[in-house]
Parts: sequence; structure tokens; C-alpha cells
Amino acid sequence: MMWTHQPSGSRQQTLTGKNRKQECIMDTVKSLSPFFEPNGIAIVGARSTPGFGFGLPKNLRDHGWADKTYLVNPNGGTIHGYPVFKTLKEIPAPVDLAVVLVPAPAVPKVLGEIGEHGIKNTIIMSAGFAEAGEEGKTRQARARKIALSYDMQVIGPNCVGVVNTANAFCTTEVMPEAYTPGKLAVIAQSGVFGQNILERVNEYGIYVSKAVTLGNRLVTNEIHILDYLHKDPDTDTIAMYLEGSADGEQLRHTIVKVTPDKPVIVLKSGRTSEGRAATESHTGSLSGEDNLYDGMFAQTGAIRAETLDDFTTYCRAFATQPLPKGNRLGIITGSGSMGALATDCAIKNGLTVPPLSKRLMAVMKEGAPDWMNTKNPLDVGPSGLFPRAFNAMMEDPDFDMILAVIAVPYSAVRFRLTEFTIEDFFFGGTLPLKERKWEKPFMIAVVCHEDLVSNFRERAEPGTPVFNTPEQPVRALAALWRYQNWKNNHK
Amino acid sequence: MMWTHQPSGSRQQTLTGKNRKQECIMDTVKSLSPFFEPNGIAIVGARSTPGFGFGLPKNLRDHGWADKTYLVNPNGGTIHGYPVFKTLKEIPAPVDLAVVLVPAPAVPKVLGEIGEHGIKNTIIMSAGFAEAGEEGKTRQARARKIALSYDMQVIGPNCVGVVNTANAFCTTEVMPEAYTPGKLAVIAQSGVFGQNILERVNEYGIYVSKAVTLGNRLVTNEIHILDYLHKDPDTDTIAMYLEGSADGEQLRHTIVKVTPDKPVIVLKSGRTSEGRAATESHTGSLSGEDNLYDGMFAQTGAIRAETLDDFTTYCRAFATQPLPKGNRLGIITGSGSMGALATDCAIKNGLTVPPLSKRLMAVMKEGAPDWMNTKNPLDVGPSGLFPRAFNAMMEDPDFDMILAVIAVPYSAVRFRLTEFTIEDFFFGGTLPLKERKWEKPFMIAVVCHEDLVSNFRERAEPGTPVFNTPEQPVRALAALWRYQNWKNNHK
Repeated sequence: MMWTHQPSGSRQQTLTGKNRKQECIMDTVKSLSPFFEPNGIAIVGARSTPGFGFGLPKNLRDHGWADKTYLVNPNGGTIHGYPVFKTLKEIPAPVDLAVVLVPAPAVPKVLGEIGEHGIKNTIIMSAGFAEAGEEGKTRQARARKIALSYDMQVIGPNCVGVVNTANAFCTTEVMPEAYTPGKLAVIAQSGVFGQNILERVNEYGIYVSKAVTLGNRLVTNEIHILDYLHKDPDTDTIAMYLEGSADGEQLRHTIVKVTPDKPVIVLKSGRTSEGRAATESHTGSLSGEDNLYDGMFAQTGAIRAETLDDFTTYCRAFATQPLPKGNRLGIITGSGSMGALATDCAIKNGLTVPPLSKRLMAVMKEGAPDWMNTKNPLDVGPSGLFPRAFNAMMEDPDFDMILAVIAVPYSAVRFRLTEFTIEDFFFGGTLPLKERKWEKPFMIAVVCHEDLVSNFRERAEPGTPVFNTPEQPVRALAALWRYQNWKNNHK
Repeated sequence: MMWTHQPSGSRQQTLTGKNRKQECIMDTVKSLSPFFEPNGIAIVGARSTPGFGFGLPKNLRDHGWADKTYLVNPNGGTIHGYPVFKTLKEIPAPVDLAVVLVPAPAVPKVLGEIGEHGIKNTIIMSAGFAEAGEEGKTRQARARKIALSYDMQVIGPNCVGVVNTANAFCTTEVMPEAYTPGKLAVIAQSGVFGQNILERVNEYGIYVSKAVTLGNRLVTNEIHILDYLHKDPDTDTIAMYLEGSADGEQLRHTIVKVTPDKPVIVLKSGRTSEGRAATESHTGSLSGEDNLYDGMFAQTGAIRAETLDDFTTYCRAFATQPLPKGNRLGIITGSGSMGALATDCAIKNGLTVPPLSKRLMAVMKEGAPDWMNTKNPLDVGPSGLFPRAFNAMMEDPDFDMILAVIAVPYSAVRFRLTEFTIEDFFFGGTLPLKERKWEKPFMIAVVCHEDLVSNFRERAEPGTPVFNTPEQPVRALAALWRYQNWKNNHK
């Protein structure tokens, strides 16, 4: 199936003919680095009353950017001890990034001044453009024309800009832990979504390299950012939330360049025409568009997440686990019911749950009680053989990935949790779970009271993701395999 | 499509011809009430060393059952201050329920003694029967023959028996909060599963009326229990975990009797042949069996859960929400992205997301900022209009159910949470959220840091379920509608 360009409404910039070609060339020659490593930042619309224009300068100062930050407001004065320049021209140093916080109606004029000053990179945070009715659309078209005339890269409008953990450059307020450097990059069309994903993965001990919120994509879009992150040495995995692509054909070309090197996880809304209507003022979408996206993602090796929960789950999996060599899942459990649910989910998601080898069966039968069936899923029940079974499965070359399902009544174990660690009881080994390295993907499902889930999470994460259902880790393992399988077929 | 009887392996008792007829008659004439309200309980296999035989007598005493509990062990003596009788015959009072905890090989003999003593209801907790190889299967067949010869109802073997919160009669150790009476009944084939579901729903403030773990279904099966719970005045909703049915045809007949009065939520594993193999020693299943179950559940108005997460979610929904009059979902959100994800999920699950009426648009446009699109999903952004929008939607007759998606960066709100309550900020009204009653189903998705999710849960649950993704509450609302729609079509 060919992926064809599907313009889909007012938030998309449809690039055709000369414009598109021109921009594609720009992609490759222009560097987006001032967005992430600026040498001088002008905050246009800084102000002394609460809001972004007040918070951002303080935020930048708190993270070591005071020397490179210059505030601009026609009223002058000082804010947070910074001098405020009345115009860009007054700034006594070179500036390579402008952050625009003025109200929407003032943006086009400001953009012209930025262009005149020779600044080639601009983040427009202000809302009130194509997302907000006819007047906003006209305004956005005007702003775009100005930006293009100055050959300017623009992130936004209607966004919260960027996060770069490597140098603590961040144009929006995030939780303190979000400054921790990690290897996952996040691209989100929506500012709220981007911030939410940061908070969400951080809860699991996963941290980002860079995050970009695209907003209305006046100039710079997900394709430019993908291209940039492809080459970013701090980024191993890219997670992207899209409502529609700026250019489907170009997106396909770019993803297919990235995926041999780095996994690209995609959550795309607008799967239904009603969902698309929810993201756009004019739908104008061809029916069947979602199937085209589905096909495109599958062809290019992108990993599509079905839900927000999947998206977070896949981020946790790719950020922490090695890729599997094959699709053979070994399941060890203390409850047959949970083993069955995990198996159903595995098969439906393209994994196999093969029988134990004769060798492994012999290992497990030794000292096992009569009632224990030595099969896969391996239900050890209350035999106390969990650590032996786990280690034998983990070392067995016949399994490419392992899932441990801890299903115990909390009423039965809660008073015993001080007697032993979960390593003693379930996994053996001399090292704490957190410090153990696995050669194949491994995840844990703790289907028990949330107190035991927390206990496991504290001891195992981020190295080993802990979930509270049998299905979610299986979906994550299957996503790892889908990606590896694509790579195998596209060498 | 006809639902045909699909025997599926060793855990199922295939009842055919005379046997089946005989048991069906027994269903209707026999009362299972001694399982839940015994007048005298014999614990056969009580012991003075750790294990069920030691814990259960203590447990019963702690919950007021000392006067009706009689311990049996050939060694005699005392346990927890109870006298221990060497045989059933020595018990100086009538007994209508026996709980068997002796090792599997001793069970058939004990069952004969129970029969001789005239006890018609027995729970066998011991494992080591059909789930544990050929010897176990032979043992189970022998035990079954004995039980049937005495016209005995037997729950188990390989189970943890029952919970009845109304009188605190419970044959297994559960968390203290599990004794709180509620209106949800739980049927689980697996003991671990049953206990887990109790713990899981309790975390959301949902409590059960009765719980039954079926184990290997020597005599009593899910059909008998469904029939009993149908008539149980303490039960409003029935949630059931099945690996396979004891009798598909009879299950269909029974569900279709129950669903006009009470919703039946079903999680069935063994959806794939590998999943069935995981629950059975011999698969012997016809391919396509799962489609038959799917069809049967749909025809009979049972609500099938796809995953463990869905199962818990549906329990929360049916235990707390009124049924919707139609399938028109109103979504109010602070982020367009989350509104789009919720909309996609709604459409895929049979709901509609209709536009706002002109009247409601007029209400919302009053005082709304320019950028606010008055549509459904209604993205109020940071306008402060959430309470007005919420209350207008809740009262609007054009919406049958409401979802509020709270998507805010926690970094932006965390210091302000002491300034106002979530009622002030999002829902208005003079009553705390917990005390407000809704006339249509209402759920909240808090797509934010887990601290804010907890904050909402503390203030809203159990009356209003709080989720942390936009999709899960939509699935729950759709399940409520599926059930109501079935009822509308089967009056």
C-alpha cells in the first residue's frame, strides 16, 4: 500500500510544490540546535505579573541560564533582577533564539522584528491562532508568511516549547525530576500532552533527553524534529504524539530513515472521523485515513500505541529493555489464571508461548511437588520454586523474553514482607533486582494489592518495569519484538 | 448463532444425558445457603501447625463464628482454645457445612464420612486433583462419585471457598476491609484470582456481597452460583472469572435469566488455543470456541471484559453508576489531545459524541474567551469555565453520560492545591464531590501526576470513579451502555 499525502484540516500546514521542496532542503541544511542549545535567548513579552512571561525568566535563571537570557518588553524596567530591554535591538549580545509570549494579535509584528534582527529560531507560545476560529487562522497565515520570508524556523504557536535535560534548557515549568537526563525524546503536538508524558514516564524512573511541543506547526514540524533527534547523540528512543501529520509522505521518508537506528513510538489520535473532528475545526479528512497511517507506521517500523496507557508502557519498555532475539515468551507465575490471561494476550499480539524444553522440564521436576505442571506458563504455585524456575527460564536459550506474574493474596503475604526481600522470594541471585542486568527483555506483573506493587516497583524499577496486570507487560514485550522483527526484515 | 456445548478439557465436568438432567433439577430444588449462612461448620483437617487448618478456625472465631465452628482431627486436643473432635460423629450439634483441609489422598475417605453424617454442603480446599496430573484426575473422579452418591453440593477442590460480608462468614483470610458489605458478587474459578479481585476492587472503595472461588468444580459450578446470586437480595451485580464453562448450554440459559435483573460481567481466559492449553492439561478444544463464547455473552446480555483491567473497571462502573438512557457522551476537557483520544475510543466502543445543542453553545459562549471552541469534546483550556461547562453538560438532556478529562501539568497546579478544592476548580456545586449524586453516568480521567490522581480519588470515589487515562473510563461508560441497550432490546 502506498502512503499518500493526506492533508487533514486547519492545524496542518499542507506543503506542496515549490514550498515543500524548499522546506525539505532547509531541513537538511538548517540546524535546529539553537532551540536546544541557544547562545542567547530573547524573551519577548516578559512581564512582571504572573504568567509564562514572569515564570520563564525565573525558571531559566534557576537553571543557570541567566547570563544568556535577555528580557524584552516595551515598558522596560527590571523583572526578577533582570534588566528589561525595550526592543530587541537594545540587547547587547548576540541572540539566536527568540521566545515569544505576547498576546496573539501582537505576534505577527513581533515576528517581523525578530526577523529584522536576524534571529533564525523562534518559539511562539501564545495561543489564539488556527486553533481559535477564522480570525486566528488569518493571523496564523500572516505569521507564517513573515516567518518564511525571513527563512525562520518556528516552533509553535500554541505550545510550551522545548526541554533539553543535558543543559537544563527548558522553556516551560516542569517538575524538578524532569531535569534528570535520560535517553527518551518526546515530540508532542499538544503542550499539555508533552508535559503530561514527562510527568508520567518520570514516575517510572524514565527520563528524557529532549522534549518538543509542536503546537500549530507554523514552520517547524514533527518531521524536522525527527530528523534532528535522529542525529542527537543523547537520544536513543523517540516517542511522538500526533493528531495529524504536516506531510504524510515526508513523514514516511523520515521515519524510515530513523527506525533502523532508533525506535519511534507513535500515539496518533483522530483514528475516527469524530476523533479527527475533535482535533480540528474543519475535518476535511478522507475516510480511511487512519488505515493509511496504520499501514505507514507498520511499513516504516514505527511502533503505534493504541492508547495513552500503551504509549507510556512502550516508552518504559524501549527505554529499559534490550531487544529480543525472537518472539518466544516464557511465563512464570504463581496463578494459572494469570498465566492464561498473559498467554491469550501474547498470542493475540504476535508472540509464541512454546512448551518447556525437555532439559528445562527435567530441571523443574527435580524437587517439585506432584501437583506442579512443568509447562509454559510455568505455574509454581506456593512451591517456593519461583527463584529456581525464574533463573532457569532466564538462562534458557529457548526463550527470548520473560514475564514473571506475581499473583498472591496480599492478606497471605503482608506480614511476611519483613522476613525476606522480593529477590529472595521470587528471583534469587545475590544482587538486588535493581542492579541485575538481563540479556533478554524481562518484565514483572504484580497482580496483587497496590502496596505489593509499590514494593516491587521500589526494588525493581527502572531496570525492570513493574505492571499491575498480566496483559500490559505482554503488550510491551510484543512491541519490542515487532520492532526487532521489522529491523530483521529491513537490514 | 446457536450456542453449543463445548467441553474443553480436564477441569470441566462434562455433564451429559442423565447426569446433566439430574443436576439441573438439583439446581432448582437445592439451596446453597449453608455455604453462605451455615448453622454449624465442621473444619475437617484443623491442625495446630501453620497453614489453612490453623488459620481458618482463628479467623472464624475472630469474626464471631466460634459458637458454630467445630474442629475435626483424629489427634484430638485443642487448637486456639477450641476442643478438637476426633470424628464428625463426636460433634455435639447439627452441622450443615463441612470445610475439608486434609491432604488430597485423604479427601475421598473424608467425603464419605461427611456423606454418612448427613452433611449436604462441603467446601474442599485441598489441591492435588484434576489440575495435578493423572493420579489427581482419578482421585477427583472418585471424589465426585462419592459426593453425587450422597447428593452433596461441593465447592472445590483446589479453591479457597466463600466470602459472605453480610454475616462475616469467610473461609479464607482476606484483608480486613474485604469484610465491608457491598453489592458486587464475585465468582472466580481460581482462588488467587478471587482474592485478588477482592483486593483490587476494595482499593477503589467497591465492596462485595459474596465471593465464591470454584476451583475444580467437583459438583457445584458457576451455573449453580449464578442461580443462587440471582436471588440473593444482597447482590446487585455479578462479576465472574471463567476459564471454561461447566456446561455452555446451561450457562447460556442461566445468564439470560439473570441479566434482565442484574448485570453479569465476565472475564474469560482461554481465548486462544495456547491460552486454553495454559489452563488445562489436555486442550481438546475446538478451534473457534472463543467466538462461540463471544456470541453467547453478547446474546445473553453478559458484559465481556477483554482484560483484567477492563474487568476491574467494569466492576467499578456497574457498582457505582446509574445506567445511561442512551449512548450520547459529553466530554469536557482541558486538553484537546485528551478529548481526541477519548472520542476515538468512544466511537470504537459504540458511543456517539454528538455536537453541543445550540442552547448549550449559547450558554458556553457567554463569557468564554475567543479561543474557546464550543463543541464536543468541550475543551475549556485554562478559561476557568470548567465548573460551568460541567454543570451545563450534566444537566443537558442531549447527553446520556459525561466524562471529565482533567489534563493539567502538575508543575503548574501543585502549589495551588491548597488554595481551592477540586470541586471549586472543576465541578462547582455546594456539596463535596463524594456526596453529589448524578442522574447519568459520570467518570473522571485525571491525566496528570499520580499525586493529583490520588487527590481526585480521595475526594470523588467511590461515587465517581477516577481513572488515569482517557480511554479506560470511556470503555466503562460503553459497557454500561451495552448492557442498557441489551435490556432495551430484550424487554
